[in-house]
Amino acid sequence: MVSVLIREAKEGDCGNILRLIRELAEYEKLSDQVKISEEALRADGFGENPFYHCLVAEILPAPGEPQGQGIGSKIIKKVAEVALDKGCSQLRLAVLDWNKGAMDLYKALGAQDLTEAEGWHCFRFEGEVMRELAGK
Amino acid sequence: MVSVLIREAKEGDCGNILRLIRELAEYEKLSDQVKISEEALRADGFGENPFYHCLVAEILPAPGEPQGQGIGSKIIKKVAEVALDKGCSQLRLAVLDWNKGAMDLYKALGAQDLTEAEGWHCFRFEGEVMRELAGK
Repeated sequence: MVSVLIREAKEGDCGNILRLIRELAEYEKLSDQVKISEEALRADGFGENPFYHCLVAEILPAPGEPQGQGIGSKIIKKVAEVALDKGCSQLRLAVLDWNKGAMDLYKALGAQDLTEAEGWHCFRFEGEVMRELAGK
Repeated sequence: MVSVLIREAKEGDCGNILRLIRELAEYEKLSDQVKISEEALRADGFGENPFYHCLVAEILPAPGEPQGQGIGSKIIKKVAEVALDKGCSQLRLAVLDWNKGAMDLYKALGAQDLTEAEGWHCFRFEGEVMRELAGK
């Protein structure tokens, strides 16, 4: 059986976290959007007022067994637990419409597709536009 | 001319902020989704590790002039300025597909519709589902 330990990320994990961000972006065909450095990940997550909190899954696959079985579900369950402990009332995710595997998993776990159900669209202002808006 | 002062919200603004949240939800036909109380808004925004930051616009319309002209743009520009000062690299919004006025404004200010351009969908786990996932 695959053994999974889910724990809070430490500053020393940032190199591996950045590697995983890049692997995900490559899968999403959005590698050009990854502009963050390991240094920025350290500063943003482990300073006085962190911009993000992060869990990491340490996976010890047994020889001959397929990797990845149920790890996504385990992480989402843990995120739900931590979020409730911190007083959150919802858990939100963004997912690409062609990523059927992820969409099916989130729906199977009980998530609602708000874009489909209510028509929500995600909008983004990028850095250069923000600087223009702010007159900087 | 309409006079607008944009400033950081104070805890004493929470009653008016909740009123505006309810007015927005009514416009969005989603009033049943507003479950937050003034007390929770106070705790979430003005405790030790605030869940949100908030700006309020104080509007002093001149007699006989239409209200609302350009106030949305002014607030977004201010949010962009504050976000850059805090080290943010993007500014994200969610908007309903039938809210053409808001969509047109965000696009005119330089935002990209990521749902349209890249196929991003917003997913949400609600409290009850989260409690099931967390086994609570």
